[in-house]
Parts: sequence; C-alpha cells; structure tokens
Amino acid sequence: MKKAIVLVSGGLDSATCLAIALDEGYKCLALSFDYGQRSRSELEAASRVVQSMHRIDRVEHKVMKIDLSMIGGSALTDQGIPVPIEEESGIPPTYVPARNTIFLASALAWAEVEEAEAIFIGVNALDYSGYPDCRPEFIEAFQNLIGLATKVGVEGCKIELQAPLINLTKAEIVLLGVSLGVNYGLTVSCYQASTEGLACGICDSCRLRKKGFADSSQPDPTRYSSRPK
Amino acid sequence: MKKAIVLVSGGLDSATCLAIALDEGYKCLALSFDYGQRSRSELEAASRVVQSMHRIDRVEHKVMKIDLSMIGGSALTDQGIPVPIEEESGIPPTYVPARNTIFLASALAWAEVEEAEAIFIGVNALDYSGYPDCRPEFIEAFQNLIGLATKVGVEGCKIELQAPLINLTKAEIVLLGVSLGVNYGLTVSCYQASTEGLACGICDSCRLRKKGFADSSQPDPTRYSSRPK
Repeated sequence: MKKAIVLVSGGLDSATCLAIALDEGYKCLALSFDYGQRSRSELEAASRVVQSMHRIDRVEHKVMKIDLSMIGGSALTDQGIPVPIEEESGIPPTYVPARNTIFLASALAWAEVEEAEAIFIGVNALDYSGYPDCRPEFIEAFQNLIGLATKVGVEGCKIELQAPLINLTKAEIVLLGVSLGVNYGLTVSCYQASTEGLACGICDSCRLRKKGFADSSQPDPTRYSSRPK
Repeated sequence: MKKAIVLVSGGLDSATCLAIALDEGYKCLALSFDYGQRSRSELEAASRVVQSMHRIDRVEHKVMKIDLSMIGGSALTDQGIPVPIEEESGIPPTYVPARNTIFLASALAWAEVEEAEAIFIGVNALDYSGYPDCRPEFIEAFQNLIGLATKVGVEGCKIELQAPLINLTKAEIVLLGVSLGVNYGLTVSCYQASTEGLACGICDSCRLRKKGFADSSQPDPTRYSSRPK
C-alpha cells in the first residue's frame, strides 16, 4: 500500500489533509511536533484527530520533540510576546521562524526511511495569517530541495509534496472536510487555547476558522472560553 | 557585529568552519545536535571545539535535541545497522535521511531570530562519503528556499548559506585549519567513536580524515582505539 507522511497539528486544516490522504488510499504516517508551542492542547487535539480517523493498519502517529522555545522569536514559542487579538498588516508575531521548513525536513526524513511516496501539509494561502512558509513558492522550493537532499531523490524516486488546501478558501476546506466525515469538534486551531482546548475566539486563527464555518453555513463546533466576539 | 550560525558537529570539517567564520569577523552562534547519534562523544568534542575558540562575546553554543533514532534508517541512528568498515560503492548506510536539511532548517530558525547574516556548514563534496546533502546542488537549493521560507527573506534581507569547504580536499581543509590555529586533537570524526572519543580508524570517516593528515603532511593527533590499520 502506498504511504504518505501527513503533518497533523491538531487544527482544522491538517485534520482535513489527513482525511484527504486517507481518501486517496494512502497508509498515513501522521507526524506532530511538540515544539514548545504556547497551546499544548494542540497535541491532544492531534491525537484525537488521528484516533478518530484510525482505520486498521491505515494510520500511525508519531510526536517529535523539537524545542523551538530555546530559540524563541515568536508569540507561539515565547510567552513574553503576546498573541495579537486584532488584525494587523504584515506578517504577525505568531509567525514561528522556519517552522514549516523544520517540520517538512523532519517529515522528509521519515518519508525516506518508510519509502513513502508523498508528504501532505495543510498549508493554505488564501484565508491565512500571511506566513511566508505557507505560500505556493515555498512549497515549490521545498519540492525542488527534496530531490537533491535525499538518497531516494538521487536514485530517481520522487517524494511528492502535497498541499491540497493551498488554493482553497477556509469555507471550501470546511465543506471538503465535512464531505469526508471530519469531526471538527475534535480540532483546536486557536493560537492560545486553554489547557482544556477552549478557544479564545479573537486571535487570527480563531477569526479565520469562524469565517470558514460562517461562509460555508456549517455549524461551528468550536468550544470557546467565553462568548465568541 | 555581524552574526553567523555555525553548525558544529565536533568533527574536523565543522571545527575548521567555525575558525573560518571567526576569522571573517562574525560573532558565532554555534549549533550542535543531540539527534540520537551512535557516537555520543561527538557532542563532547563539539563543546571542546567551541570552548577552545571562545573569544569574549564572540561565541555562543546551543545543543538542540531532535531524536532521529525514533525514525532510524541509518547506521548512525539505528544500532542494529552496522557501520561499514570497508569502502563500498554508492551512498553508504551511514547516510542519515534528511539530516542536513533538518540541521539547516533549525539553523535557519535561529538565524532569523538573531538577525544573523550567514549560516556556515562544513560540507565537503570531494573527500566525502557521497551523501546527497553535502553537494553544491543541495546547498544552492537550500539557499533558494531560505529566501522563500522566512519573514526576513520576504522583506528582502539575505541570509547567506556559506559552505567554505565544499570544493576543498581533506588535505586542503587540514592546512587551512592549521593556519587558523584549529586544534584537531579536540575533534572527533569517527562514526563509531568510543565513549572516551577514541576513533576506530577503519570507518569511512576515519579513512578520509587520515588521508587528510597524510596528504597534507601534518601530524595526525587522532586518538585511536587500537593500532590504526
């Protein structure tokens, strides 16, 4: 059976991505990161999401530890930098330097060892926070790197970097996930979710997620820590 | 003062690289990885090397933990795969899938946070083990990725990926290091060094290192575990 590494953060996009990879017939090796992120409930959400899509011999899950808080430089890895609660122009302080490069590099290692044919990442460049490492040009550059960085690449095999959500709106992502049976109530997208996984409702990630449910006319199953604003 | 991240493994090449970066006037942020490698004495060597080149406020050192033994697939991260002691054709089993991609991605994160201008990596594509992620085409592809993956890249600043040893023979590297005052007696290159840092003398890395000292007519300060073969 063909295999894929799927990056699973515990959020809405990566849950959809996992459902897509399963629907395409891949055995899915789900990879999450304990990277020192502010919202620890993300990782519990990632486990729940994987568990909910578990089909016999079709899903495995690993959690890699990489402590990016020792580097800091982001509101998600440095508790001293606040998460913005209002829309700002430019790349916001929740951007984590080189995060997707590190995640994809680690996924690539596992893909090579497992002889996986694909790596799935749930990046999206429409309803997103403007992070540079979510854009199509970044994905293309990493695809180019894969062929040159690895033994399998040198030997002429290809590991396809799949970003199936990259050109979808959040509403389209929600509709696609619902059609594939994703239970979004299990996911946590909030940048500063409580330890119980309750969302703040006002950060950038909450705003984008809400918009996805509203624009797609789907019920929003998110558990908020207070009345959503 | 301009800053550079320098990948320091504890071996001959990266020690030379650190000396070059210091000589070029950089404040050096040395980065080592505790990645589950077979030879743990590498990390002690890395600390010794950094310590020996420590100049006031000019060198910092961080060790990042990334457990690649949970992925395995290499003689260096899976104790069940033996280190070859004879020359073989092709890419040897000491190749660690995507290792330099992971190391450079992590260095990139630190570089971005520290506003460093450069990342130094001691890869070499002449007297080397044939690893794909040591070749010029890999370095070029990663340089291309840097500009697209980061906020600083989008804002038009450049982080230069420097691989100053890439086209040098091992003998030329030794001569360059000696001229810069590198104490190679502190370094460990062996793929299977003992816990005391004694080299086997027969693995690929030991063979290349010996050749470097022999061809440059420099005394070999390596401590071998038995009479070198």
